[in-house]
This record gives sequence, structure tokens and C-alpha cells, in this order.
Amino acid sequence: MTLGSVTSREVWPVAYPRGEVRPADFRLVDVPVPEPGTGEVLVRNTWTSVDAALRLRLRETAPPGYFPAFPLGRPLDGVMTVGEVVASHADGFAAGDTVWHAAGWRDYAVVAAGQPALGGVGTLRRLDVRAAPAQAYLGALGANGLTAYAGLLHVAGLRDGDVVWVSAAAGAVGSLVAQIAKLRGHRVIGSAGSAAKVRYLLDEVGVDAAFDYRAGPLPDLLAEAAPDGVDVYFDNVGGDHLRAAIGALRPHGRVAICGMISEYAAERSAPGPDNLMLAVTKSLTIRGFRASAMAHLIPEMTREVGAWIRAGRLRYRETVVDGLERAPAALAGLLRGDNTGKTLVRITR
Amino acid sequence: MTLGSVTSREVWPVAYPRGEVRPADFRLVDVPVPEPGTGEVLVRNTWTSVDAALRLRLRETAPPGYFPAFPLGRPLDGVMTVGEVVASHADGFAAGDTVWHAAGWRDYAVVAAGQPALGGVGTLRRLDVRAAPAQAYLGALGANGLTAYAGLLHVAGLRDGDVVWVSAAAGAVGSLVAQIAKLRGHRVIGSAGSAAKVRYLLDEVGVDAAFDYRAGPLPDLLAEAAPDGVDVYFDNVGGDHLRAAIGALRPHGRVAICGMISEYAAERSAPGPDNLMLAVTKSLTIRGFRASAMAHLIPEMTREVGAWIRAGRLRYRETVVDGLERAPAALAGLLRGDNTGKTLVRITR
Repeated sequence: MTLGSVTSREVWPVAYPRGEVRPADFRLVDVPVPEPGTGEVLVRNTWTSVDAALRLRLRETAPPGYFPAFPLGRPLDGVMTVGEVVASHADGFAAGDTVWHAAGWRDYAVVAAGQPALGGVGTLRRLDVRAAPAQAYLGALGANGLTAYAGLLHVAGLRDGDVVWVSAAAGAVGSLVAQIAKLRGHRVIGSAGSAAKVRYLLDEVGVDAAFDYRAGPLPDLLAEAAPDGVDVYFDNVGGDHLRAAIGALRPHGRVAICGMISEYAAERSAPGPDNLMLAVTKSLTIRGFRASAMAHLIPEMTREVGAWIRAGRLRYRETVVDGLERAPAALAGLLRGDNTGKTLVRITR
Repeated sequence: MTLGSVTSREVWPVAYPRGEVRPADFRLVDVPVPEPGTGEVLVRNTWTSVDAALRLRLRETAPPGYFPAFPLGRPLDGVMTVGEVVASHADGFAAGDTVWHAAGWRDYAVVAAGQPALGGVGTLRRLDVRAAPAQAYLGALGANGLTAYAGLLHVAGLRDGDVVWVSAAAGAVGSLVAQIAKLRGHRVIGSAGSAAKVRYLLDEVGVDAAFDYRAGPLPDLLAEAAPDGVDVYFDNVGGDHLRAAIGALRPHGRVAICGMISEYAAERSAPGPDNLMLAVTKSLTIRGFRASAMAHLIPEMTREVGAWIRAGRLRYRETVVDGLERAPAALAGLLRGDNTGKTLVRITR
């Protein structure tokens, strides 16, 4: 098979954004479709992921401990993607296979089999598309599902009777956290950034209480939704949200921080919560985590979350953007809070 | 027995300090020696404790979750003290017993047997003064020992190979934390607020590296003492110390916060660390705790720490102030950092 006459489009960062991500920070580049070598496959990508945390790598220097910054003038290596194998020179893969890999934001990728990508979260692997559509492995059955599942159950150590607050609860991770906590029988409070999202939380996600954090002082909104306080806070936001949680947590409360979207675009770090003394007086535990440090839980998560999805007990929404060229705008929109559920780019040409 | 002709001196707070604690915030009051009722003992106090955390209760409102504020114009109920029973109307106690209780900063106290005090940490109890001098039960074998032992081993979850940083390491708690970590075979870095304290840390406490935090930018001093980073930070200080720790912690590092002396006198809370995003990228755990929530570990701590003390493997220093009337000045001095080891008031008259 030859694809010599076909070109592959790739989205390259060409400047690190200052503040908001702008489409001009990227360029859509035509390159020849690469040829797979021994042990490699050529994949035609069909769906590619858009994640808030990409913003952390679109900087001169990524935070210590995190994945390195994306180099400028090259495709993004480390963005989760699914596609179909076009040609395989690797054992165990054949043309037509649907696969997961991390060479996203491009039409075609050559991927080496058996090489770890993304700090351990993933290696090129074949997907079971009878169990779920391919793009679910970028969301509820992928890193988002792992983040929600591991963060709530293992990092926050959910215990019987805990009252749970989830911020960014209409997002890709938060909406799963809220549903898993409900499936486990907890009272769940969700917050989000618009009245429409609040309706989604109440009507579809099924939380017990929800509020729009823009509707008033956050501590008051939280106190109204959880008058007796909370035991677990699942943090996607940081900043004033984390501060409000520390104020509202009951003794022995726990925070799992999976991200701080309020911080990602900041040129300088914002001050942290000024009420950390309450962590002492209330014996609180605050834990940050990355899904990539939780890869050992992937089989358990896939089994449990997969069963809930198949039984119709856990649902997820997707915000789908059509066209690779719109990936940068999709990221900018996600960081502005335009999305509900998982943001995906469907690659069509 | 009658003590009708004797008076008891008591130190009462009469104003909540603004900023630094001043002797004028207290008054030394003469009151009749109280008479014990049924189930009570009369104790002549001999040593009374001076703790930085008392400052948290010398405010209109104590932090949520903490012990309540001390009322003005009354003796301080909830300050650890030892003394000798003068008269007993309680089963199990007799005149001449050396006891621990929480009615401190006064000459004489009537204490009910079997009543919990200090949120569960203590009830009136007889002390084994053959095992250690009475005042040790206010320090290394008391709340300080419990805080150090529980904080390091249980809250921070000390693991083989961990490099440990202890702040305020010349203080009552920090000097125990540093020694327990050394006894467990760890590399230990201690910091304190003067060159004399640094010498004490190196020569007597036996840490591997020590620095005076006033000698330069804290992150630089820490990096010099721990070039490869640390795994556990035992926080007695908060503020810039906590920030530096978050910067220096290695992946899966842990912080046990037992106090934030930098915060106690503040009229307004200081901003928290601006680098909490690193808790996410490095999978850090930050836990606050109070010794009073760890009372179940008292027997284990007493056994282990007591054995180390008797074997001469764990030593402690005392900063002794003679005279009840000097207790307020002793507290002010402690909050300024004048002390080394445990600050005690010896009650003489």
C-alpha cells in the first residue's frame, strides 16, 4: 500500500500562548504521510482529545514533575487519540484495527508498538469497539475515567456517608466523579459555570444539589447546597474553589486535586488558599494526583466503569468539534468553559 | 486539711493580644484556694506548659475545628500542667500523687477525676515519676511527643529511605521529630531561626544538615541542605516554609502540618502557597492534624519514646522560666522564637 500521493495535516504549536489560547498560536501544516518502519504501524486518526491540561505544556517550561513542555514547530506528542491502522509492520496489529495512541492532533501517525507514552498511561493498544465506541476510550473509558475513578475512590478515599462536592462537575472528569459518587450512594453537590450546566447536572448527571459558581459568593453558594459541610472535595479548579472547600470540609475531610484550571493560563501563580490553618484544626488531607500515576488501576476502572456504561447507569456527554483545523479553537473554548462533558475533535477530510 | 489562709495565684487573660503577646494582656489574680468536691482533687501545680498554639485561643474567635477561644477574665482551662495532689475526694487519687491535668497557669486547681479535657488528649491522671521527671509529661512524653510521633510516623507515613525536613527543629516538637527520624535511620534536615539553634541541631539533635532560615532565600538554603529534594516535610511554621517544601518535595512526597506558627498572631490570614499546582504534578499529600485526634496512639508513643529516653537515645531540652507571673512573657518569647526545646514554667512561691 502506498499513500505517497496523500498528505497528512498536523497541528503544530508555533508560539506559546500568553493568557488565552489563540488559533494563531498554532499552524496547520501539510506533511507527507510517514512510512512505518519495523515494529511500527501507520494510523489514520479518527478522534483526537482536547484536554485542559494540555495548556500546562504549552509554555516555555511545564511545572516540575509534569510532562515536558511541547516543543514549538513540531506535532504534539502526548495527546490521546484513536484511529484505524492503515498499515502494520508490528506484531499483533493489522490493518483495520481500531487503536489508541498518543500521537494526536494530526491526520496520520506512525506509532511504535510496545513503547510507553504519556508517562506510563498508555502504549499503542487495540480497542474493543464492541464494548464502547472508539472515542469513549479518550473519555469515560480513558484518562478521564481513570482520573475520576482513582481520584474519588483511591486518592480521596471515599467512605460510607461522605458528602461529596465536585467542581467543574459538567466537565469530562467531574461528570464522571459525580455519577460514580451517586452510584456508590453518596450525597453529591456539583458546581459549574452556567445555568445550563447546572440544569444538566440536576437533570442528567443526577446530583443532589448544584450551583453556578458565578451566581454569588462561592462560600455562600456552597453553604446553601451543603449546609452541614462536605467530607470530600474533588478539585478541578483550584483557587477560590479550593479555599471554599477547605472552609466547608468537616473534620477528617479530604481533597483530591486533579487539576487547577483556574491556574493554567496564569503568567504568574496565584496565591494559594489563605485558610490552610483549617487543615490543622480540622485534620484535613489534601492530595494532588495525576492519572498517569494511577495506571495500575486501569483494568479495575475499565471493568467497573465499563459495566456501568453498558448497564446505562453511567452516561457521558461529548462536545464534538468537527475538523482537525479546529482543534486549537476547541482547546480555547474548553479553557473558557464552553464545553459540557468530554471535548473531542472528529478528524474528517 | 485546710488551706483557708492560703491564696492561689492565677494568670487570667484580660485582653486578646493584637499581634505580639504582651504581659499587659494578662493579669495575675489572687483567689482563695478552692475546695474539692466529691470526685475531685485539689492539686498544687508545679510545672505548667507554654505552647505556641495557645495563641490560637487568645483571640475573639478560635479557628473552626479548634478548641474554643479562652474567655477573658477567667483562668485558662485547657493548658497542660503537672502538680501534686494536696487533697483528694476522688477514688484512685491520694495526697502526694503526682498528676497531669489541664487546669494550668495557676497555683492551685480543683480537677474532677474521669472528666475528659483538651478534646480527648487527657484526663486527670497519675504519673510514673520513676520513669521520667514530672515535667517530661508536658513535653517529650506528653502532647509534644505525641505530636512528633504520630505526625511523623502516621500522618506523614514515614517510609524507608525518606529524606525528612523538619522546620522549627530546635523546638519542643521539631527536636523530637528530628530525633525519631534519625532513630529510624533517615537522612534529616533541620531548620531553625538562629545560628545557636543550628549548632544545637547539628551537635545535640544530630541532624545530617541544618540551616538558619534567616540566612538567605529559603528555597536556596533548602536546596543546599537537600540537593536531591525531600520526601517528607514536617511543618511547624507554614507560610514560606510550606511553599519551599512543596517546591522541594519529590514525587509522592508528604507534608504533615502540625502548626503554622507564622500565622498565629496574624490579624488576617496570609495567602497560602502559590505553588500548589505542584501537588498535582508531583502527586503530593498535605495533611494537617492535631495531637488530640491521635490520642489512641498515646500508649504506643509512651512505650517507644519512653524506651528511647531511658536508653539515652532520645534527648530533649527545656527552656525553664521560674515563676507563674512570668508565664505570659514566656509565651511571648516562645512566639518570638527565643526558646530551645520545650518551654515550661516552674511554679514556685
